[in-house]
Amino acid sequence: MGKGVRLCITGSEVMNGFVLDKNTQFFASELYALGYELKESRVIHDDREQILRTWKEYRETGDIIVNSGGLGPTTDDLTVDLLCEWLGDTPVYEKHAEKRTRYFFERRARDQTRAISIETALRQARIPSRAQPIRNTVGLAPGIFIPEIPFIALPGFPDEIKSMWAETLGLIEAQGVERAATQIIPIWGVGESQLFSHLPEAPDITYGVHALPWGCRLFLRTAPGNGARLAELTAVIQAKFPGQSVADPLKEIVAHLKAEKLSLAVAESCTGGLAAKQITDLPGVSAVFKGGVVTYANEAKEALVGVDPEILRRHGAVSRECAAAMAEGAARALAADIAISFTGIAGPDGGSEAKPVGTVFIGMHDARSGITRVGKFLFPFGRERFRNASVACAFLAAWQYLQGDIPTVWPLSHYEAVSKKLT
Amino acid sequence: MGKGVRLCITGSEVMNGFVLDKNTQFFASELYALGYELKESRVIHDDREQILRTWKEYRETGDIIVNSGGLGPTTDDLTVDLLCEWLGDTPVYEKHAEKRTRYFFERRARDQTRAISIETALRQARIPSRAQPIRNTVGLAPGIFIPEIPFIALPGFPDEIKSMWAETLGLIEAQGVERAATQIIPIWGVGESQLFSHLPEAPDITYGVHALPWGCRLFLRTAPGNGARLAELTAVIQAKFPGQSVADPLKEIVAHLKAEKLSLAVAESCTGGLAAKQITDLPGVSAVFKGGVVTYANEAKEALVGVDPEILRRHGAVSRECAAAMAEGAARALAADIAISFTGIAGPDGGSEAKPVGTVFIGMHDARSGITRVGKFLFPFGRERFRNASVACAFLAAWQYLQGDIPTVWPLSHYEAVSKKLT
Repeated sequence: MGKGVRLCITGSEVMNGFVLDKNTQFFASELYALGYELKESRVIHDDREQILRTWKEYRETGDIIVNSGGLGPTTDDLTVDLLCEWLGDTPVYEKHAEKRTRYFFERRARDQTRAISIETALRQARIPSRAQPIRNTVGLAPGIFIPEIPFIALPGFPDEIKSMWAETLGLIEAQGVERAATQIIPIWGVGESQLFSHLPEAPDITYGVHALPWGCRLFLRTAPGNGARLAELTAVIQAKFPGQSVADPLKEIVAHLKAEKLSLAVAESCTGGLAAKQITDLPGVSAVFKGGVVTYANEAKEALVGVDPEILRRHGAVSRECAAAMAEGAARALAADIAISFTGIAGPDGGSEAKPVGTVFIGMHDARSGITRVGKFLFPFGRERFRNASVACAFLAAWQYLQGDIPTVWPLSHYEAVSKKLT
Repeated sequence: MGKGVRLCITGSEVMNGFVLDKNTQFFASELYALGYELKESRVIHDDREQILRTWKEYRETGDIIVNSGGLGPTTDDLTVDLLCEWLGDTPVYEKHAEKRTRYFFERRARDQTRAISIETALRQARIPSRAQPIRNTVGLAPGIFIPEIPFIALPGFPDEIKSMWAETLGLIEAQGVERAATQIIPIWGVGESQLFSHLPEAPDITYGVHALPWGCRLFLRTAPGNGARLAELTAVIQAKFPGQSVADPLKEIVAHLKAEKLSLAVAESCTGGLAAKQITDLPGVSAVFKGGVVTYANEAKEALVGVDPEILRRHGAVSRECAAAMAEGAARALAADIAISFTGIAGPDGGSEAKPVGTVFIGMHDARSGITRVGKFLFPFGRERFRNASVACAFLAAWQYLQGDIPTVWPLSHYEAVSKKLT
C-alpha cells in the first residue's frame, strides 16, 4: 500500500453506544471516491493515554492522520491540550474563532439555562501556536492542521465536518499523496449481481459496487492519469442501462413538475406513507405536492380515493385493477396532474401462492392524458427493503415517464414485468 | 481501567464507505448496558498484516478480543486462516456447520446463477482445531472462541451477530471480568438538559444520557453488587416523569387498540407521512390502522378530511382550529375511533413572527366521546428532527390519553403548552 489516511474518532458517547459513528463512513466514502486510500479507523474514548498512543502509532506509518472529536469547550475535549503536550507547543486563541465565540457568548448569556463562563467557552477557540486553522462555518471550534506530521483535527459533529471538508481536502491534496483516477456511476433499479453481469471486462479497471435500496452506485478506479479510459467506459456502461443512470429521480421529478407547473399526489397501501415521507423530505416541495392518502384498510380505499368495491371484491386489494383505481382516485381527490399508487404485501404475513409476500403493484396516472399504467413487481426482501424498493421503483418509473416515456423494462431484479396500459 | 473488550471490525466494504459500520454501536451499547467496558474499536481492511498486527497489539492488553467479519467463503475472508497461522493451529470442519453447508449447497446448486464449488462453500464451515464454535442460526459460518487469548470471532452481518449474541455474552461473562451494576430508564418527551436538572444528586452513581428523537434513555451505573440502590433511584426518577417512562408508546397504543377493538387514523401535513410510516413499520398493524391522509396542500385538507375553508381563511392551515378539524375529519373519513393530526411549519421557509419555523399543532380526536384536543409545540431543530419530535410527541400523548388520561404537561423542551379541549 502507498501512502494513505488514518482516522482517529474520539468520543465516549460513541464508545457507550449512545451515538452511531457515521463519520468513518463519511470520510471513507469521500476518500474512496477521490481515489485516496483509507488505511484504518480507530474509535476510542476521550482518554489521554489512548489518544496519544494512537497518534504516535499512526505517525510511524507516515500516513496522514485525521482526528475527529475533542474540539469542544468541556474538560473531556482533549485534542488541543494533547497536541500541545505531544509537540511541546502552547495553545493560542485563533483570532477569528475567538471573535465569533465572544459574540455568541454574549448573545447566549441572556439565556440563563445555558450559561457557561467565557473562559470555558473560549477553550474551543484555541489551537496550538504552530497550527494552521481550518475554518468552521457551522460551529465555533476551528479545525487544526499541523503540516509537519501531517495531522488534521476536525470536530465530531457531522455538519461541522462537512462545512470544513473542502478546505480539508485541499490540505490532504497538498501532501502530494498519489491517488487513483475514479468515476462514480449511479444506476437505479438494478441489483448487484445483475449489474456485475453487464460490466465490460477491463483488467485495468477495479470495479466497486455499492448496493443501495434504489439500485447501485458503481465505482470505477484505475491508475492515475487514466481518466480518458474511464470516460469511455462510463459511456459504454450507461448505454446498457438507458434511463437508469440518474443521481436522484425524485429530485428530477420535482424539478420537472415545478418547471411545467404540474402537481403530484400519492396513494399508498403497503408502503404506508413512505413515498409521501420521502417526497416531503425535500424542502419547498409544497409547490408541487398536493398530498397523499395512506389507504391501509379497504374502506379507506373506497372512502378516500373512491376505489369501486366491486374491484376489491373481484380482484382484491392487491391487484393491478386496484392500483390503477387508487392512482386515478388520488389524482381526482387531490386534483393532481400525476398520481402514483402502491398496493402490495409487505409481510411477514398475508402472502399466498398467487400473491406471495413481496408482491407489489405500482400504478401511475396522468390526468392530462387519462393514461394509467401499472407495473407488478416482486421484492421478497423483508418489510423494510420491500418498501424502499417499491418507492424507488416508482420514482424511477415516474421520472422515465416524464422524460418522454423511455420504454422501460423495469429492470429491478426479481421482477415480473407486466407493465401495460389499462385505459 | 480494568479489563474490558476490544473490537476489531474487518471489511474493505466499510473502508470504502459502501457500508456504514453499525456493529461498533451494537457491541458498544450492549456492553455498556451490561456494565462492561469497551476500550477501543478498530475498523480495518481485509488485509493480512493489518489484521494480525491489530490482534497482536490487542492481546498485549489482556482485554477480551472480539473480531467481526472475515468468516465467509471467499478468498478475502481471512479470519480462520490468520488465526491458524497466529496460533500454529490447523483448520477443521465444524461438524454442524459442515452438515448445514452441504445441505444448503445442494439446494442452491439448482440455482445456476449462484453456483460456487462445494470446496469454496465449505471454507466457511472451518474453525481452528482448538477453537470452540459459536452457533450461528442465521448464516452458515460458526463463530469462534479461543479461550487462551481470549478471542471471539463473529461474522460481519448484523443479523448473524444478533443470533449469536446470547452465547457470546455467556463466553464473555465466563471470563470473570468485573462489571458495573446498571439500569436503563427510557423517558419520553424530555430533553437532555431538562432530564439532567431533574436527576437526584448521587455521588455513587454515574449517569449517562442518550438523547433520542423521542426523548432520552437514561443509564445508571454503580459499583458491582449495588443493585438495590439502583432500583430505589429508578423509582425516584420515574416518579418525576409520570406517564413518560415507557419503552415504546406506539407499541402500547397498538396493543391497547387491538385489545379494545378500536381503530386509528392519522391526518398529516408538516410530518408528510412520517406518522403513517412509523405506524405501518409494525407488522400486523392493519388490524388497527385504517389509514391516513397527507394533506400538504390546503385543497387536500378540504377535499380529504373536510376542513372548513372558513377555518383556513380565518386561522390559517397552521392553527389549533385546523389541527382539530383535521383530526375530526380523519376520524370521519376513515371511520376510525381515534385520529391524530399534525399541522405545522417544518421549514426552512414559511415561518413568521407569530408562527416561527418549528411550530406544530398536534390534534387528537376520540370519536367515541367526541373529545378533541390540540397541543401547540415549538421544535426549532431543523426539518428532520422537527418531524421526528412531532410524531414522538403525538404518540406519547395518545398513549397517555388511552391510559386513562394522565394529566400531561407536554414536557418536551421548547414547548408552549396550550393543550385544551376544543369541544
